Amino acid sequence: MKMSQGVEWMMHSTALIAQTPDGAAMPRRFLAEHYGLPEPYLAKHLKALVRAGVLTATPGPSGGFRLGRPAESITLLDIVEAIEGSSPPFACLEIRQQGTGALPPEACRRPCGMSTLVQRAHQAWQASLRETSVADLVKTTPNSVKRANKAKLAQLSAR
Amino acid sequence: MKMSQGVEWMMHSTALIAQTPDGAAMPRRFLAEHYGLPEPYLAKHLKALVRAGVLTATPGPSGGFRLGRPAESITLLDIVEAIEGSSPPFACLEIRQQGTGALPPEACRRPCGMSTLVQRAHQAWQASLRETSVADLVKTTPNSVKRANKAKLAQLSAR
Repeated sequence: MKMSQGVEWMMHSTALIAQTPDGAAMPRRFLAEHYGLPEPYLAKHLKALVRAGVLTATPGPSGGFRLGRPAESITLLDIVEAIEGSSPPFACLEIRQQGTGALPPEACRRPCGMSTLVQRAHQAWQASLRETSVADLVKTTPNSVKRANKAKLAQLSAR
Repeated sequence: MKMSQGVEWMMHSTALIAQTPDGAAMPRRFLAEHYGLPEPYLAKHLKALVRAGVLTATPGPSGGFRLGRPAESITLLDIVEAIEGSSPPFACLEIRQQGTGALPPEACRRPCGMSTLVQRAHQAWQASLRETSVADLVKTTPNSVKRANKAKLAQLSAR
């Protein structure tokens, strides 16, 4: 299993967008330059976050991206699932009902115990990512970084 | 993120191998027919489990696969990681050190807080899969299925 690199990009980008002053919009180019990222790929991931309601996009020369809801109610899971999709990585194909060892349908009314256990692990993963909000990310950002961001982001409200 | 279908195949196969009588070896063809699986792909996943020490392989006409260690000490995580590898799905590329917003090296002595959080979720997933052993899988198999397996697996010790 591999997570898209977009997850790292979007966790950082969303936390930076949460720090823009006075509700100013964050231009895509600003993000691309700030993190040294290729703009076309960044665009794709930003679109995914807009689709998921994590961000909103405003077009035009003074447009850009804002949080789609308060930073307190956007979790890491929201960002990860916006990029990776929300379907669990394990799909049970019911091999217990295949081959010469196929179980009769009446023995398969309940979900397969194995797929239930893998699903439970996925839920533990989801629960862990749900514990941290974008507001928490900003809170735990080192003060020196927050100060540097503040100075740099001030230019956005002046646009 | 997607898990290989081999994970489902190998959870079921390992649990079936744990039910062979008198330490008899499980032929690959038996597994392929029992679950209706394509033998070449099955071979690939069985090899991965041998490489991980979950199974051992004995060559020859009466050969096949046995558990590499007691069923109590093989966990679901061992099987999943034998197939999927044990590297975490999220790889932090340190974008905090890139672009015009690059942090100075002295601000990056500790791992990035975001990658730590995603890593923590991965550990929760691993811990959940580590809770269940192959012995547990066999224990929770419905009695009717265990009885049917026993009758069918008896032919293996007669080889």
